[in-house]
Amino acid sequence: MSDDHVPDDHPRHDSLVTRHRIEDGVERGITSKQGLIAEGRGEAFDYLLGEETIPSADDAERVAAALLLRARHPVLSVNGNVAALVPDDIVDLAAATGADIEVNLFGRTEERMRAIADYLEEHGAEDVKGLTGDGRIPGLSHDRGTVDADGIGDADVVLVPLEDGDRAEALGEMGKTEIVVDLNPLSRSAQVAAVPIIDNIIRAVPNITRHARDLADADDAELAAVIEGFDREAALDAAEARIREGATRREDD
Amino acid sequence: MSDDHVPDDHPRHDSLVTRHRIEDGVERGITSKQGLIAEGRGEAFDYLLGEETIPSADDAERVAAALLLRARHPVLSVNGNVAALVPDDIVDLAAATGADIEVNLFGRTEERMRAIADYLEEHGAEDVKGLTGDGRIPGLSHDRGTVDADGIGDADVVLVPLEDGDRAEALGEMGKTEIVVDLNPLSRSAQVAAVPIIDNIIRAVPNITRHARDLADADDAELAAVIEGFDREAALDAAEARIREGATRREDD
Repeated sequence: MSDDHVPDDHPRHDSLVTRHRIEDGVERGITSKQGLIAEGRGEAFDYLLGEETIPSADDAERVAAALLLRARHPVLSVNGNVAALVPDDIVDLAAATGADIEVNLFGRTEERMRAIADYLEEHGAEDVKGLTGDGRIPGLSHDRGTVDADGIGDADVVLVPLEDGDRAEALGEMGKTEIVVDLNPLSRSAQVAAVPIIDNIIRAVPNITRHARDLADADDAELAAVIEGFDREAALDAAEARIREGATRREDD
Repeated sequence: MSDDHVPDDHPRHDSLVTRHRIEDGVERGITSKQGLIAEGRGEAFDYLLGEETIPSADDAERVAAALLLRARHPVLSVNGNVAALVPDDIVDLAAATGADIEVNLFGRTEERMRAIADYLEEHGAEDVKGLTGDGRIPGLSHDRGTVDADGIGDADVVLVPLEDGDRAEALGEMGKTEIVVDLNPLSRSAQVAAVPIIDNIIRAVPNITRHARDLADADDAELAAVIEGFDREAALDAAEARIREGATRREDD
């Protein structure tokens, strides 16, 4: 992998790894121009957050794990940047929680759908959904709202990392419990999610998996207690506060 | 121009115009992958700033105008994103201040250098410098440090919008008075600049031109007074404060 040479203790490790993987994604045809711009937005917010998983995000990641474990039908929605950034971690999370993986693009083309599904399969994913496209998210235009009927269409809990605001809102209105990963606590996606995770996806996804493994033997009451204890407003406020504090604290770029 | 259809009163006007122009720049071969990521970082900081020129930035833009007018040899350094975003405005600013325009790329290739020079010339620029490459910025590797000897090499005042931190630092060490436009007040470029302008380049460059026209008849003592009154630390602090306040104030994305 092209990021193997970034030393673990490099002060901008996550930012450099992320950037290398996204650029590699462009070469593979799975990251779009919009994806590159989104990467830059994420870099800026992660920079202000201090490029680390803050405690409220770690809490949210544990809640996400509990929700996925407890779901009737959990689905992990994967777009171009998610596939480029965390292909192995998504496969691990699906295995740890019994979730389906579905490719779902804001700018849907069959070519990119196929490239992303192939890339995930190279990383060990099985039965990647999304290519059938026989389901719909109400209230969105055709290419934005297309899903698999037996995938996101049937899911009760969906993890939608790096999701567009319109679609995050529409999925919520379908009654699905939505877990969003987004570095901007004020983004509409984060604001409408049942569980907003304000963290870099390259830290968030493996950490949800760690929590899922830790909770693997928990009974339903324990999982319910983890979920009940979560305060989404407090999590959003904590991330905002950290962005403000971070802006005074950091002095390098 | 592809952004003509963004209404002036759209709440995300600057962000949408910027994005359209940058994507157009990719089609023309003048914006790189790094340029798209940088655009995203800028979007995030501009979002937190409130997508407007804050008073301290307007002050810095007036100081920049005075410095350019008073310079022996002012040069405007233009990279791919600057050319894509503000080609007309750079030409206007050069005319208003008697500055040279020099193409200067972090990732220098003859093809991109030529494409950018051609694009600026289409927008009315004359004698675009940068292609000779017979000068050097000490302390940088060859492709990073190449400039024209009779351009940036000879300049006493340089406007380097969206500059890389290493190069901003090296130019400052050459004794040049450096005006930087950067949306991140904590970036190294902003931190090392004599005049850091924390503003979106699509607002900053035309506003420097307005100030230059306003100051066109000022005598040297008046220009010196404008420059003397500038407090770079206060300008950086004001931008940081606005980013923090912005993070609490805005609720849409």
